[in-house]
Amino acid sequence: MQYPKALEDLISEFMKYPGVGRKTAERYAMFSVIDLKNESINDFSQALISAKEKIRPCNICHHLTDKETCDICSDGTRDNSKIMVLETTKDVFSIEKSGTYRGLYHVLNGALSPLNGIGPNELNLVSLWKRLEKDDVKEVILATSATQEGEATAQYIKRVLREVEVLVTRIGYGVPVGSNLEYADDQTLNKAIENRRVF
Amino acid sequence: MQYPKALEDLISEFMKYPGVGRKTAERYAMFSVIDLKNESINDFSQALISAKEKIRPCNICHHLTDKETCDICSDGTRDNSKIMVLETTKDVFSIEKSGTYRGLYHVLNGALSPLNGIGPNELNLVSLWKRLEKDDVKEVILATSATQEGEATAQYIKRVLREVEVLVTRIGYGVPVGSNLEYADDQTLNKAIENRRVF
Repeated sequence: MQYPKALEDLISEFMKYPGVGRKTAERYAMFSVIDLKNESINDFSQALISAKEKIRPCNICHHLTDKETCDICSDGTRDNSKIMVLETTKDVFSIEKSGTYRGLYHVLNGALSPLNGIGPNELNLVSLWKRLEKDDVKEVILATSATQEGEATAQYIKRVLREVEVLVTRIGYGVPVGSNLEYADDQTLNKAIENRRVF
Repeated sequence: MQYPKALEDLISEFMKYPGVGRKTAERYAMFSVIDLKNESINDFSQALISAKEKIRPCNICHHLTDKETCDICSDGTRDNSKIMVLETTKDVFSIEKSGTYRGLYHVLNGALSPLNGIGPNELNLVSLWKRLEKDDVKEVILATSATQEGEATAQYIKRVLREVEVLVTRIGYGVPVGSNLEYADDQTLNKAIENRRVF
């Protein structure tokens, strides 16, 4: 049996999301039409469009923000002698939640992965080099994931920065090898930041 | 750290869905703003509104449809001497997928659950009694879930139908006790329909 077209379309839309298979998408679609009121559907639809419209990368660190420059970059009380380099904007939220770090960030938007066609030009690296030229940065903390790609990215940045007078460190103990920062708990993240080593 | 408001709003919307916690909602919201293109967001938003607008309960059996009367009720080739009584419209899709049953349906929209304030008046029962008065129904197949509520609902309907000249059967062997129809595979459902017994 076919679902009515409007329902089938909605199921397809939900299936685009990461980790959402057919069964889960059917459940979300059913929930939408059966359990959610008209208002809730309008709110949801509006929230989607509004988030997509308003949320953009910060013009300095590429972290997601609803302003030109994100709250972290424009916060005068933060330690602007440190830049933590992260793969994704999700990782900024993870580190911020853990609550220890008070420096700035730089979001690469990925990690080097030659097999997937992601080389240095695909990452936000030029803007990082430029920040190091201009700003008063004393330390670059490489907090890419403890995966092969994350490690390769850290190595690459370290190599490039050999010619720049800046301390390059790598967060270390604490983050489980082979996993993404996103899934680390606050304590593990605090430990990893605390135990960073010269790279 | 706070997420930008538009992002936080979107996360809240996703958290309304069944089984979606904070972490999953964050992932869906991030995916929406980072990975989905503007077009995809518009399609999704449109699919939500359109499904909510177009999908309504069938005026005969209460199954979800985009027409006044659903495709099953208006299909002349189906055996209209049988009505299968189900808790939810999801169950109709499950039975239809299993492919054996060619009769009609009646969706109760729930099961009796006095503790949750769901009595006979909260279910689509009056319309069921009316169908039995008017139509040429020989058999009512009770296919409510094998849960306490589903069983109580089946018992209730059986009791009411004692005064009506109709064969009342209950699907049986096959559906695992304590679980919902939704999660049963096709073969289990076929078995359950085949082995239905007089109730």
